[in-house]
Formats: sequence, C-alpha cells, structure tokens
Amino acid sequence: MFDGGYLGKVLRVDLSSRTWQSEDIDPRIQRKYLGGRGLAARYYLDEIPGRIDPDDSANKLFFFTGPLTGTPVPASGKFQCATVSPETGHYLCSNSGGNFGPNLKFSGYDGLIIEGKASSPVYIWISDGHVEIRDATSLWGLKVRETVERLKEMTANRKISTMVAGPAAERGVRFSCIQVDGRSFGRGGAGAVMAGKNVKAVAVYGTNPVKVADAQALARAAKEAVEHARETKALHTKYGTAQYTEVLNTLGCYPTRNFQTAVFDGISTISADYMEKHYKIKNVACFRCPVACAQLCEVKEGRYAGMRSDPEYETIGSFGGQCGVSDFGAIIAANALCDEYGLDTMSTGTIIAYAMELFERGFVTRKDTDGLDLCFGNADALIETIHNIACRKGFGDLLAQGFRGLAERFPDTLSFMMQTKWMPFAAYEPRAFHGIGLSFGTSSRGACHNVGGWTIRDELLTGEYDRFAIAGKGELVKRIQDVRAYVDSLVICTVVRSGLGFTDKPTGRVLEYVTGVDFTPELLKIGERIYTLERVILAREGIRRKDDVLPERIASEPLPEGMAKGRVLTEEMYAAMLDEYYAARGWDREGVPTRERLLELEVDDRVLRAMDGLL
Amino acid sequence: MFDGGYLGKVLRVDLSSRTWQSEDIDPRIQRKYLGGRGLAARYYLDEIPGRIDPDDSANKLFFFTGPLTGTPVPASGKFQCATVSPETGHYLCSNSGGNFGPNLKFSGYDGLIIEGKASSPVYIWISDGHVEIRDATSLWGLKVRETVERLKEMTANRKISTMVAGPAAERGVRFSCIQVDGRSFGRGGAGAVMAGKNVKAVAVYGTNPVKVADAQALARAAKEAVEHARETKALHTKYGTAQYTEVLNTLGCYPTRNFQTAVFDGISTISADYMEKHYKIKNVACFRCPVACAQLCEVKEGRYAGMRSDPEYETIGSFGGQCGVSDFGAIIAANALCDEYGLDTMSTGTIIAYAMELFERGFVTRKDTDGLDLCFGNADALIETIHNIACRKGFGDLLAQGFRGLAERFPDTLSFMMQTKWMPFAAYEPRAFHGIGLSFGTSSRGACHNVGGWTIRDELLTGEYDRFAIAGKGELVKRIQDVRAYVDSLVICTVVRSGLGFTDKPTGRVLEYVTGVDFTPELLKIGERIYTLERVILAREGIRRKDDVLPERIASEPLPEGMAKGRVLTEEMYAAMLDEYYAARGWDREGVPTRERLLELEVDDRVLRAMDGLL
Repeated sequence: MFDGGYLGKVLRVDLSSRTWQSEDIDPRIQRKYLGGRGLAARYYLDEIPGRIDPDDSANKLFFFTGPLTGTPVPASGKFQCATVSPETGHYLCSNSGGNFGPNLKFSGYDGLIIEGKASSPVYIWISDGHVEIRDATSLWGLKVRETVERLKEMTANRKISTMVAGPAAERGVRFSCIQVDGRSFGRGGAGAVMAGKNVKAVAVYGTNPVKVADAQALARAAKEAVEHARETKALHTKYGTAQYTEVLNTLGCYPTRNFQTAVFDGISTISADYMEKHYKIKNVACFRCPVACAQLCEVKEGRYAGMRSDPEYETIGSFGGQCGVSDFGAIIAANALCDEYGLDTMSTGTIIAYAMELFERGFVTRKDTDGLDLCFGNADALIETIHNIACRKGFGDLLAQGFRGLAERFPDTLSFMMQTKWMPFAAYEPRAFHGIGLSFGTSSRGACHNVGGWTIRDELLTGEYDRFAIAGKGELVKRIQDVRAYVDSLVICTVVRSGLGFTDKPTGRVLEYVTGVDFTPELLKIGERIYTLERVILAREGIRRKDDVLPERIASEPLPEGMAKGRVLTEEMYAAMLDEYYAARGWDREGVPTRERLLELEVDDRVLRAMDGLL
Repeated sequence: MFDGGYLGKVLRVDLSSRTWQSEDIDPRIQRKYLGGRGLAARYYLDEIPGRIDPDDSANKLFFFTGPLTGTPVPASGKFQCATVSPETGHYLCSNSGGNFGPNLKFSGYDGLIIEGKASSPVYIWISDGHVEIRDATSLWGLKVRETVERLKEMTANRKISTMVAGPAAERGVRFSCIQVDGRSFGRGGAGAVMAGKNVKAVAVYGTNPVKVADAQALARAAKEAVEHARETKALHTKYGTAQYTEVLNTLGCYPTRNFQTAVFDGISTISADYMEKHYKIKNVACFRCPVACAQLCEVKEGRYAGMRSDPEYETIGSFGGQCGVSDFGAIIAANALCDEYGLDTMSTGTIIAYAMELFERGFVTRKDTDGLDLCFGNADALIETIHNIACRKGFGDLLAQGFRGLAERFPDTLSFMMQTKWMPFAAYEPRAFHGIGLSFGTSSRGACHNVGGWTIRDELLTGEYDRFAIAGKGELVKRIQDVRAYVDSLVICTVVRSGLGFTDKPTGRVLEYVTGVDFTPELLKIGERIYTLERVILAREGIRRKDDVLPERIASEPLPEGMAKGRVLTEEMYAAMLDEYYAARGWDREGVPTRERLLELEVDDRVLRAMDGLL
C-alpha cells in the first residue's frame, strides 16, 4: 500500500477542452516535498513557465492535500493552493480550512489542478472519483451563500464541500478569495484566478476513508491529541485568535489608522472579551477540530442588525484598528459582506485604511469618492466602500486593483502604502516587533505573518529574543518559516500542531502511523527545502533583495505613543537582519539561493535546472 | 592563577568571639557548584546541621559571589545569600544587586560567612582585605538611608558598599530584608537573621580588580554584551519590570485583592506608562549595568509628596493589585517606607492583602486594628500598616510574624492564605498560568517565581506550551529552574543573561575568558546539581510532597472574570504536574531525590552522605 508514495492521484481538469484526467503523483517528489504547500509549489515550478500575467489562461490553480489531510488526526481539514497571484503578480501559496480537502481525498484525489479557461461559466463536480464539468450560467453573479445552497440542490447532495468564487472574484477584484465551506483561501486573489477561468465553483463529496498504515496507533494518537487540544486551546475556543487584540494593543503593537500609530483608542469595544460578551453566538469548527476557533457573531441591534460573521484577529485588526472603527457591529458586518462577495478581509481593510489616509491627506477628495466621507472611524464609509470594491463602482473600482494598481495611480504615496511585494501588511507593527518586519519582508507571498513567520511569541517578552533586537532575528525567522512550511505541507492546522509534536524539534509519530515511514526527523529539512523551492520560483519571477523591503513609514516615522513610542526600524537595521537571514538560508547577497545550499537540501534535478537557468 | 579554582577565599566572621579568618574555597567544590547560589547552598549543607530555629545563634549567613561577579561583564554586580529563613523556617536562597558583591571581591574575598552572635551591636568593615568588627551602638535603631550615611562617615569612605539591617530587622520582622546599596536581599527575612546576630551593617570597599584568564577577549565580549543589552532591553530601561503590569492584567492573570480576582479595575493608574509619565525621575543602575532597570520615582503632590522609591512589577503588584490600591503615589510611598524600614515589599503587600481580606470577612475587627479601616483600596490604611509592622505595633506586630505566625493565630484561613512553605505568592495567578502554580509549589524557597521558574514567557501565547496545559509543565519548570540555578551561581543578572548566551542551551564564552576553562557546556547539569542539592537540604529539614502545595483557593475558587474566567487549578491537575516534575527531576513520589540521580549528577560525597542520612 505504501510502496514509495503515500499520496495517490491528482485530478487535472482542463477547462479549455472540458476534459479531465487522473495522474499519479511521483513518489519521489512526494517524499521530497511532503504534500500540500510543498507539492503545490513543486507542480507550480514545473508548469508555470516563469513570470506570467495572473490573468493569462496559462495560469493554473494547484490544490493539494497532504499526508495528514482527512485522517483521524484532529484539525486535519486543511489543504493548500498555489497560483500566480492577481494581487502581487507573483507566486502565491494559500491555505484553507473547512472540509473540502478531506472530501477531495475521500473522493479519491490528493490534489486538483485546474488549467485552461472555460468558454462559459462552469462548476466542477467531483463525487467519489466521478468528475463532471457542468454549466454554471445560472450561478454566475450569485453571492457565496446562495451559490452554495444552489450547488447543494444541483448536486442533490447536502453534504458537499465547496469552493466558490464570489461576485468580487467574477469582477476580477485582485484580492478576492476562494470561499471554502465558510473558510477561505483568503490572501492574494486566488478567487479572481478561478473566476477568470469561468469556474464559479467546485463541489466535492467523497466516502472513501483515507487508508493509513497503523489505524490503531493513529486512533490512539489522535485521541490524545484531541484531549491535548481541548485542554490547551481553551482560549482559542473561547475567543479565537481575537484573544490577541487587547494584548498587542497594550504592548503598543496594534496597527492603527494605516500604521500611523500602534495604540487604538477604541480598543475596549473591539476586544475579545467585548466580542464574546456582546456578539458571540457559537463556535464553528473545521473538519475534525476539537478547538473550533471560529467565533460566530451576530449583530443584535442597530443599523447592522442581523449581520453574522466570525471575525478573527486579522479581520478585527484590518477593519477595527486599521480603519479606526470601534463599532464591533460594523466589523461583523464588514466581515459578512466580504464573505458574501468573496473578498479577503485583510487586504480589504488594509487597502481601505490606506484609502482613508489618502482621503484625509487630500490625495483624493469627496469628488473621487462620490461624496463619501472616507475618513478614519467612519463605519458607514467602510461598509459602503466594501460594496464599491466588490461591485467595482467608482473609487472602489480603483481600490479593487490592490496596491499593485494603486501604486501606478498614486506613485507618491509608496511611503505609507503598507505592503511588501504588493501584499498588504498583516495586523502587526514591525517598529514594535522587529522580527515581524523581517517576516513581512521575506515571506514567500509578500507581507504575511503566517508564511513569513509569526515571531510574536518569541519576541513578546524579552527572553532569548527581544522585540527591538536585530541580531538573531534572521535565524529566528528562518526557523519559524521552515516549521510553517512543513506544517502547511503535512497539512495540519497550526493551532493543533504543537500537541502533535510538530514544533521546531519535530517529534510527532502520527506521520509514521499514516504513511508507514517515520520521516518526522527530516521535517525541518523538508520545510527548508520547500521554502527554498519557493524562493527559486520567486527568483525566476525576478524577485531579488530590492523586493524584500518594507515601506518607508516603518523606517522613518517613529511610533508616536505606547510601549514602543519613538521606535523605527531603519533601513540599516533591516539590512542587518536581511543579511543574517540570507546567510542562514544560504542565499546570496541578492537573495538568490546558492547551488551549494540547494545540493545540501537535496532538491530534485528539476529545481536545480530551474536554478541554473537563473545563474 | 587558575590551578583548579577560579574563586579564592571566603571570609568567615565569628561574632561570638569577634574574630575572623580567611579560608580557601576548595577548587573541587567550586567546579561542582560554580559559585553564588550553588556555593552558598553547599556551605549551608555542611554547616547548618539540619532543621534549626532561624533565630538560633547556630544559624549563619552565607554570602557568595560567582566567577562573573565584578568582572567587566555587564550587570555582574549580583551576589547570593543563604540562611535559615525566619519567614519560612527553612533554607533560603536570595540574590541582590548593587555593588556589594563586586566590592567584596575587589577587597579580596569571594564569599563572606557570618556566624555566632555579637553581644552588642556591631558593624563589619572590610577594606581591601583588612577586616574590623566595630561597635554599632550608635547606628542601632536608625533607618537604612541614615545608617548608610553614617557608615560613610565612620569609615571615612564615601565609595563603600553596604549591607544594612533596618529597624524592621532589628525588631525581628520575619520578612525584613538586608538592604544593599538601594537593592536588597528581599525575600525570606535575611535581615532579621543579620540583626538577630547584632550586626547592623557590613561595609565593604575594595580596589583590586578581578583577575581573569583572557582580559582582551573578555573586554570584547563584554562590549558586545553591553551593546546587545542596550539594543534589546530598551523596555527594561524605559519601564523596568513594570512593563508587565498591564499585559498581565489584560491576560486575566493579575492577582487582585488577595487573589479574589485576576483583573484589577484600577489598572490604568498603576500601569508602566502611567508611572513613566507621571512619576519617573530617572533610571538607577546596579554595578556595570547598561540597562539600569530601576525606575526612580517621586510623588510630586498630595499627601505622599516628596516620597521617592523605585517600584518594580512585584512591588506594584503587591501594594497595587493585591491591596486594591490604584493611587500610584501611595505605592511609591509604601515602597519607600519598606526601603527605609528594611521590609520585603512582596511579602509586606501580600500579607497586608491577606489582612484586608481577614478584615472584610470579619476575622478581625476595628478593635483588633486599633480603629484602622483595613479594607481593600484604602491607601492610608496600607501605609499605616507598614509602619505598624516595622514597629511591631498592635495588629502590625501579629502581621510581622509572617504567614508562619499568622497560621497559628488564624488556622481557619489557610484556604486563602496565599503562600507555599509560608512564603507569600509573587504577583502571578496559578489559575491563569498553571505552570506558575508548579513553580510556586516546587521553588526551593517557597512560592517564588524566580527560583521556582518564571514560566510566563513560555505560557503567554499558546505555542509549545499553553497556559492551561498540564502535560509538559513538569519538564518546563524543571528546565527554567535549572537555568536560573546556574545563572544565580555565575552570578549574573537574569536581565542580561541571554545576551551573554546563558540560556537553556548555554553558549556563553565569557566563563572561559574569566576562568580559563570552558565549562559552559556543563552549565545545565550544574544547574540541576545545585537545584537538587537544595532539595537535599530541604528534605533534611523535613520538606516532602505534602509541603509542595498551593492554598485551596487556587483549587476550588474559579476566577470570576477576565480571560481566565472560570479557571481553577484543581488538586488532581496539580498532582499530575507534580508527578511529571518529580519524574523529570529523578525524585521519588515524596519529592526526595533518589541516590541514582544524585550519582548521575555527580554530587560530591558530602551531599551523598547527607542524602543517605535521610533514607
């Protein structure tokens, strides 16, 4: 059963010819790149020829599960996507929860590649190995929830999992998501790629359980991990990631009004405790997750009454602190709208925060905004602008192009355009946590705390690392990135990974129980191999040291208040971190992986050849 | 120079005979127990025969510097004390900053042992190897600052460092300190031992620099460490440890009103930012410390106008949250009084908080308190009670006996007497951070976050450890304790240790530059050896599993509010942590070190014999 490979088949759907085929996944490639994010990147390297336009029909969507997806291991519902990002113009990796990944596996496929372009709207229906490319004309233009409802009718199966491109994706908003069972491939605009291929949705349902090497041992380990998660993730269950909001504000690290300050005066009504007391209805869980970190909230009264969504830390950060909005009801509403239109809440909020600063500084006027008073703290203007982005109406049409488009229109505002590689910042302040600056700068998909490395835990209280230290951050960020790269390739949710022993000293046994082979000790090396592969891809697309940078605000505007008052992260400080980081990674001074390190990492020949093409 | 030993001589002062002698420190013992806390414990084992009354003249004071004390290494001013604690009745280890340790070394001694009892008040004057036991009748009764001033006159040297027993120590308050150059041996009542021997003070001045093996390499390493500390400890410089106050309150971990809740409604006026804005005058530094974490504050107006002190996290916690006092001026005043009387601010505040609960519950009345309205939040009552404790007046006389005495008087209140082994809790909430519960329970000197292990950093944000997890905490607490044990033996301040490479994976080179021998790789083992030696001492004094416990409030009263609302640390949960801890330590089920582990740790024969006496 485990002769070399633990992943079986990838389903390739060619929309241009409306055909599909099942292909074996090379066992040698599996073992080198593990699954999920690693395999998606490896297929991307092979099949995306270099830098291409994200809207080009040569762009593809690579979806991959990993060895743990769909197994009895808790929170094993995640799967990964790679594509050329409409938001950044470069390689994008993205991960999503929900039940789609497991269902894809249960239906006989470990991966799904969507290529070409359909001549008219379609949806793909995968059911226990049976694949259909069906007409979706009647679904086009529908919002997400209604699309899902209709898909359940059209497939006559209420248990399906779905990936859906919302109206924002149909209109090519560059930061539109693929919505997945109430979760999403959020960042980078994968939704626009999918809709650009005329794919409205993918529905999947499978009934074949994942085969594992030692079911009994796995069941035991899974039970222990569930207990561990229940015991240890109580705050995730009670508050979700929103638990960090107030702490980070207290620490003077809470991005506010487009990073003009790091302390939000409206914090008390957007804190986790406030949310839990006034808005929370219930928890919502991804596949086999005992934690259920999603906090479903409802607005009970006022102008947003009846709106429901599950805001997490980043969403609250982008609509709350960043837009200066202290009305939690408006945050719930903004989140709900994004879910329905299929918009990334992080990019949407951070881009609107930038627009608010444009407005307050006079770069745009009421004339540009059709009379909208787009100033910080105006919740109604926030809501209205979300509609306008999704519908590409007026000023919203401009914002829908993301920072990549806005940079062309407002070239003099790059200093306060809070992005790296055109990806809007996550809700952490590099001036208050210098490691997070390096994380944003070197993340494989542009400013991202997950792929880039969530250094907050290590930097929070001065210990081995300090928030304001420079030395050591290169090594730290590399290590966190490598861990995340293998975790995203297993695929397992980061919330439960430590209980399974998937840390920076991997000890987890479940991989052996699933695959029959204990390659846990290799995981860190595999993680580094994957991260380096991603850099080979980016280097091929032209990314160099000049792109691994932060906006000037971070280097030159001291934080005006709070515990990090007066702090900046100067170019010199940043350069020192970057040098250490490149050295730790075995990349040259321009950030290009060296052949020597690639050989040490035992990448396969295809990657070496791609690299040789660069040198 | 380094033929076997890097420490030279210990000065032994016998008060009964008013004689002194200089003794060599056995090189083999140095290498096994390093210095500072380790050596003090090893001498204690040898010279304290077993469980004795702290007031017995057979009790001694063991002061030891370490290999790094007084070297060019930054923040190398600390030294250590061991004695039988009047507060707990057991072994006490304590550390202090200031300049005394370096001056002792510069005067030719690496340690100082004070034994016997003088027939009348004396002070000891050590000057470059010259030792005098001088009459101190004129100093008796003086407060600390005036004592120091007079000592400068009496020694005709304004550069002296001093250890002083204040009026509280003279009156035998069981939690009186030895005040050291504005710092102190704070916890456990070492001041009462010193005054009980009729020693008012020790003054020291030395001019001989510490000899090191490689002065150039050391200077370079010291310079780098200074730069690292300057770069990375900015928040310690700006706020001191007070930086944690607001964060821990936000996390629902801030002991309030004798641990009745973990969220303090008066937090906004006792936060670090508030202190820095309204009260801070300047930083004060210990010996060669570039961080200077002490925040000298002054009350500018109101009833405490003119009062000055340098409150740190624990002091603010005990007088602020614990006593429910939100007037920061009162906290500064309370701290200043303690410094002048020579009282441990932590025990003083926590015992007064307990007294306030006694009062509010009716265990004591206005009649007992001489009319004082001893309710939570009453700053004047707090101040008055500090006077009463130091002067042993009325109800204060009872409180002066510490929890050990109060337990006899109020046996029905043990459930909310927040102590372990009679040592009052530090300002962390075990129900909100379960690791800190184990730390309090197993600390070598009773409830203490430093010796017991400051788990907050590891538990703060869910990662490898979670606040509410049980599994893993035994190993975690052991590791932190072992690190602290070697750090306290080097001796180096914990604030700068990471920059010197003294972490749980020790890499520091300075030990080699100082001693000529690189035993950094052994440090963790040495730390464990020292911690285990301390347990041998405690076991000999009767300490067993039954003593490694927390008050019932922690197990049975759920926290009423905040992020840890509803949480308890039940006896079962605690027992599971303790089992894991004992197993990790190689102690038996009763918490007694096994001979097997002692052999593995390569303790010397004297320790083995002490152990054999127990079995």
